[in-house]
Amino acid sequence: MDRRSFLRTSAVGGAAAASTTLAAPLYAQGNRELTLVTSVPDGFAIFDDAAQLAIDYIAAMTDGQLTFNKNSAGTLVGAFEVFDAVSSGQADVYHSAEYYFLNQHPAFAFMTSVPFGMTSQEMANWYYRRGGQELHDDLSSLFGLKPLMCGMTAMQPGGWFNTEINSAEDLQGLRFRMPGQGGQVLGRLGASVQNIPGGEIYQALSSGQIDGAEWIGPYADERMGFQEVTNTYYAAGFHEPGSALHFGFNLEIWESLTPTQQQICKVATEAAHAQNTALSLAENGAALARLVAGGVQVRQFPDDVWDAFGAAAAEVREENMSDEIYANIANSYFASQAESAGWYEIADGEYQRQRNRVNAG
Amino acid sequence: MDRRSFLRTSAVGGAAAASTTLAAPLYAQGNRELTLVTSVPDGFAIFDDAAQLAIDYIAAMTDGQLTFNKNSAGTLVGAFEVFDAVSSGQADVYHSAEYYFLNQHPAFAFMTSVPFGMTSQEMANWYYRRGGQELHDDLSSLFGLKPLMCGMTAMQPGGWFNTEINSAEDLQGLRFRMPGQGGQVLGRLGASVQNIPGGEIYQALSSGQIDGAEWIGPYADERMGFQEVTNTYYAAGFHEPGSALHFGFNLEIWESLTPTQQQICKVATEAAHAQNTALSLAENGAALARLVAGGVQVRQFPDDVWDAFGAAAAEVREENMSDEIYANIANSYFASQAESAGWYEIADGEYQRQRNRVNAG
Repeated sequence: MDRRSFLRTSAVGGAAAASTTLAAPLYAQGNRELTLVTSVPDGFAIFDDAAQLAIDYIAAMTDGQLTFNKNSAGTLVGAFEVFDAVSSGQADVYHSAEYYFLNQHPAFAFMTSVPFGMTSQEMANWYYRRGGQELHDDLSSLFGLKPLMCGMTAMQPGGWFNTEINSAEDLQGLRFRMPGQGGQVLGRLGASVQNIPGGEIYQALSSGQIDGAEWIGPYADERMGFQEVTNTYYAAGFHEPGSALHFGFNLEIWESLTPTQQQICKVATEAAHAQNTALSLAENGAALARLVAGGVQVRQFPDDVWDAFGAAAAEVREENMSDEIYANIANSYFASQAESAGWYEIADGEYQRQRNRVNAG
Repeated sequence: MDRRSFLRTSAVGGAAAASTTLAAPLYAQGNRELTLVTSVPDGFAIFDDAAQLAIDYIAAMTDGQLTFNKNSAGTLVGAFEVFDAVSSGQADVYHSAEYYFLNQHPAFAFMTSVPFGMTSQEMANWYYRRGGQELHDDLSSLFGLKPLMCGMTAMQPGGWFNTEINSAEDLQGLRFRMPGQGGQVLGRLGASVQNIPGGEIYQALSSGQIDGAEWIGPYADERMGFQEVTNTYYAAGFHEPGSALHFGFNLEIWESLTPTQQQICKVATEAAHAQNTALSLAENGAALARLVAGGVQVRQFPDDVWDAFGAAAAEVREENMSDEIYANIANSYFASQAESAGWYEIADGEYQRQRNRVNAG
């Protein structure tokens, strides 16, 4: 990856955003419809659910005065082109996963999830209470964008494999779909990593173009039909322990909204994010039970494979630390993670251990 | 407890609510201010933060057309009188913890938290995705109330003690502040349990009226100043693994709001609940570090004390199962808990175990 390209892309994005001419101050002009572009097909479980709930909330709370014309992946622009489309003013707002845009800046990884990073609740703690939102605002503003967190896939399983993974050597040459830093980690361990949009994974897996894939979790994966192709499912994964999704508004469009509309967008996305987190976690258990009843084998990676993931993840993380923006965000992220995790371990962790022990007794 | 009193109370509440006469259909009458009564002093960490954030959100999103005149505990009515005040129409809405109202109906316990019950995220899963809200709506409607969840104290520590708890015998005769089913469990183990409003605990503890108390968690407890009186703090607790707070609207007041105002209240409370959950979890680690630096000793209950808690909790839970409403809510609650906990254990649980192991290696 060429780190110097970050600022070049930034300059392009910023200039394009600045040249967007708005017809007039749109403040209080009555009804308004924004053009939304997304990275998945309409109705995709969890991912599209988050976007749809937020725009439903916003429409209801504004009495229909602020609405969104949602264009799914490939309709107006491709799944991974939404960032540039909104940065340049071609569309008004996107809903996507920020780690699809590591070529624009590698620090976007932290806004979704990174290997050995935060769980869903730890991510909310950092984003809302320990400066995550502000750091994201600063990063996105380089590209003429304003981000709002909206969507949480929660713990993403290790994924679907056509072979058992008994040692790190079994990853050698494996053609696997995994985006973000997780994919970079697998690549260091010898896998042939591909980033394929959600809407195209099933085809790639069933045609034999790839040997395996991770997507979101039991509930969303079941809807994708991966269990029709392979039946080996690794439960806990190292790569995305709590992946957030985001809206990215074109910054000038955002600033043209009234303060009340901005507040409604902010609160609606916070609420939809919480609902989406509950959706992810509540539906995964039921979906996994169905998958297992249908013959799926649930496995866990052995400790030495986790060790290999850990060593490679540390290398990937260090790779960009010479970039000041990246280092600043990484340091904030991991400091918050350590603080949350320490308390969590002696409180919720000890409670869950005792609850399991007492209930089993 | 006299179970037959539930329906009597219910009938009183229902009749009082039904006799509330509203001046006119208030729909679209312009600005409106509701009288809010709470169970804690203004500014109380976490508890009052949740109420304040929600009413700030609602005011901002309605351009000031729907506001709340907040009356803290003891101002208009006492801390534990808010339920009856709103049920009877004396006030429009309360913000409190539903388990303060077990005398009105014992099933309100599940709306806050019960011993060996759900963690913060499991509670959100049940409330939003597995029928918790609807069951709560049905229960509260018996009293002329409409509930909205808003506030999450997260895992509540075992609490502050003036003695070590090395066996269940050490609980004998202990004068301890703990509300809800948790207090009933401690009572079965021989403790002398008192339910004291939040604003009065410090005085009770420092005057020697009680030997110990639990309140919310390190962040809120630190602000209460308990560390000035006793320095033995038990971390994980059995009694409230994820306590929710709620608004309770007088049902006729709720129904007099416009559909847009209702939607704004619903979304604002969902967002404030998520923010409050993050506040609780993010601030507890930092607060605990300060408490420890100041000399507080952090302990965990030994396994056989947890076993005693578990046995007494099972007895307390069974006590009300002959009540149909209670049984229906209990069965829904524990079925959802089992479903969430199973997935959580093989996903987040295994991940956190591996993350700790790899990071320590």
